[in-house]
Amino acid sequence: MAGGTSCPQLVAAVSEAGGLGFLAAGYKTADGMYNEIKQLRGLTGRPFGVNLFMPQPALADPSAVEVYQHQLAGEAAWYETPLGDPDSGGDDNYDAKLAILLEDPVPAVSFTFGCPTRDTLDAFAGVGTYTVVTVTTPEEAQVAQWAGADAVCVQGVEAGGHQSTHRDDPQTDGAGIGLLSLVSQVRETVQIPIVATGGLMRGSQIAAVLAAGAEAAQLGTAFLVCPESGASLLHKQALTNPLFVRTALTRAFSGRPARGLVNRFMREHGPYAPAAYPQVHYLTAGLRKAAAKAGDAQGMALWAGQGHRMARELPAGRLVRLLAEELDAARTAVSTGSTQ
Amino acid sequence: MAGGTSCPQLVAAVSEAGGLGFLAAGYKTADGMYNEIKQLRGLTGRPFGVNLFMPQPALADPSAVEVYQHQLAGEAAWYETPLGDPDSGGDDNYDAKLAILLEDPVPAVSFTFGCPTRDTLDAFAGVGTYTVVTVTTPEEAQVAQWAGADAVCVQGVEAGGHQSTHRDDPQTDGAGIGLLSLVSQVRETVQIPIVATGGLMRGSQIAAVLAAGAEAAQLGTAFLVCPESGASLLHKQALTNPLFVRTALTRAFSGRPARGLVNRFMREHGPYAPAAYPQVHYLTAGLRKAAAKAGDAQGMALWAGQGHRMARELPAGRLVRLLAEELDAARTAVSTGSTQ
Repeated sequence: MAGGTSCPQLVAAVSEAGGLGFLAAGYKTADGMYNEIKQLRGLTGRPFGVNLFMPQPALADPSAVEVYQHQLAGEAAWYETPLGDPDSGGDDNYDAKLAILLEDPVPAVSFTFGCPTRDTLDAFAGVGTYTVVTVTTPEEAQVAQWAGADAVCVQGVEAGGHQSTHRDDPQTDGAGIGLLSLVSQVRETVQIPIVATGGLMRGSQIAAVLAAGAEAAQLGTAFLVCPESGASLLHKQALTNPLFVRTALTRAFSGRPARGLVNRFMREHGPYAPAAYPQVHYLTAGLRKAAAKAGDAQGMALWAGQGHRMARELPAGRLVRLLAEELDAARTAVSTGSTQ
Repeated sequence: MAGGTSCPQLVAAVSEAGGLGFLAAGYKTADGMYNEIKQLRGLTGRPFGVNLFMPQPALADPSAVEVYQHQLAGEAAWYETPLGDPDSGGDDNYDAKLAILLEDPVPAVSFTFGCPTRDTLDAFAGVGTYTVVTVTTPEEAQVAQWAGADAVCVQGVEAGGHQSTHRDDPQTDGAGIGLLSLVSQVRETVQIPIVATGGLMRGSQIAAVLAAGAEAAQLGTAFLVCPESGASLLHKQALTNPLFVRTALTRAFSGRPARGLVNRFMREHGPYAPAAYPQVHYLTAGLRKAAAKAGDAQGMALWAGQGHRMARELPAGRLVRLLAEELDAARTAVSTGSTQ
C-alpha cells in the first residue's frame, strides 16, 4: 500500500503480531520516509520492510495530459480546487531513498512498477537487506530472478490499488491474470520464493496460495480497515458499503491502472483517462483531497481489492493472529481429504 | 465447454478415469444433444453431466447488430463468406432439451448464462438429476441457492470461453472477479457445495480451491489439447504458441464477453463489438469456420483460460490421473507446514 495508508502504527502492529509489516515509501520525500522508519523503529524491534516505487520513464505523449487537464476542468470548479502540477516529478525520489536504505539498512525492501538493476539488488544483498520485486506476469518474474531479487511478490488482477506492471502498456489493459493462475505460472518459471498477493482476506485463502506453490502471502485491503491504518474514515466505510459493490481498474486518478471501488469520478473520467503516470496522480491529488474533505466518497480514489466486502474491522495484531488460526485450520482440513 | 469441443469421446475418457465429464449441449439441436448422449452411454457406464445454455432475453438494441454487420463487411469479403443470420434463435432449444433430459435423465445437468426456475430445478431433482448453476458473483450464487440448485459452479474471471454472468450488462464489463477471491465470497454467502472453475491447470491449484472452501474443481482449457477433444488442431496448437501469449475478454465473436487468445479479429473488432448474444455468434459463425478452413488462427475464436500456456497434451484419462496425483501431493505438502 502506498501513501499514508501503510503507516508506522499499522506496520508496527503487524510486525509485533508475527507478520512482516511493510512501510509505504511511495509519494514521500526521502526524509519523510526516513522519519517514518525511525518512528517505526521506536514502535517495534521486530523485522519490517519498506516498499519503493520505481522511477517512471518519460511520457510518450505529454499532450494527452493537457487534454485530460481540460477534461477535468469541471471537477476543479466543482471542488473549488485548482488542478495540481502534473510535472511534480516522475522518479519518486528513488535515488535518495536508495541512498538512505543502503546507509541505514532495513530488514526487507520491496519494489513496485519495475525491477531494480542488478547493481541495486546486489548492494542491498551486501547490506543484508532481503529484496522483493513485485510482478504481474511470468516474464516479469523471470527478469526479477535474473536481476538477483531474493523473492517475487506475485500480484494477481484482484489486487487493490495499482497494478505493478513493469511497463505500462495500454495494449495490455484487460490482460491482468488471476492470482491462482499467475502463482502457478510463476512457480513453473522461477526458482526464488513467491509472495502471493491480490484479493486475499482470509487464512483459508493463504492456505490456498501456499498449496499452489507460494511461500508467503501479502494482504493489503484486509488491513485497510484496521484502526491503525492511515486510510480515511470515508475510505474505510466505503469498503463494506453496499453502495460500492463493484471494483474496477482505472487510470482516472493516477494515469496507471489501479483497482478501486467504482464511483462517480471513475465512471465519468475512466473511459478517456490517459496513460500518464504519475502526471495524472499529481493532477488529481488536490481534487481527491478536496473530495475527502467535503465527505464526498464519489470523488475520491477508493482503492480496494476484489475481496473488500470481506474486510473485518479488527486491530491489526488481532487480525494477524486470526489469519494464522484460519490458515492452520484450512491446512488441516485440506489434508484430511484424499482422491485415492 | 460449448460446441463440439467437449464431445462424447472426451467426456467418456474423463468419466472413465474417475472425473465427471460434461457434455456440451450449447449451440446444438435437441436431437443432436440426445444423439451425443446415446453415443456417450455407449462409451461409458460411469456418471457424466450435460451443460445447457439458458435462453437469452430479447435484444435491447437490434440496430447495434446491424451496425456491427456493416463493420464486418471487410471480413466477409476477405474470407469470401457471407455473414450469418443473426436471428437464428436466442433460446438454444432450451425447452426441447429440458424435455429430453427429464424424459431420459442423466446423472448431472449444469446451466450457463442464468439460473433455471425453481420448477425446472425441482423437476430435475424429481428424476434424480444433480443440478449445478454456474455463477460469477456472490449474488448469482444466492439466487441459485434460492432456486434450489444442488451446487454452484463458481467461475472466476480467468476462465476461457464465455463468462457465465446471468445478465449481460456492459456496465459491469471489467468487474470480473478472480477465482480465489470469488470462491471465498461465495463460500460465505451460500451453504450448497461449490465447484470452482477458471484457469485451473494443475492438481496443486485444485488443492488450492479446496483449501479456500470449494468441494470440487472444473477444468476446461486443460482438456482442450487432449487428443479426444473436439477442438481444431489450429486451436490446440495456438494455446501454447508464443505468438498468442495474452488472453482477453471480448464481445467480438459472440456479443457476450468471452476469454480467448488475443488475435487480429479480437484486436480489430473487440473495441466496438456490441452486447448482442447470440446474434453476433450467428453473424460470425461462418467467418470463423472459413478462417479455420483457411488455416488462419488470426480470424478464429481461440477460446482459452488464463492458464493456457500450462496445457499438457496428454490423453484425457492420463491427465485426470496426473491431476489427482498432483492434488494429493499438494495436500500433503500444505499440511506439513504450520504457523505456530
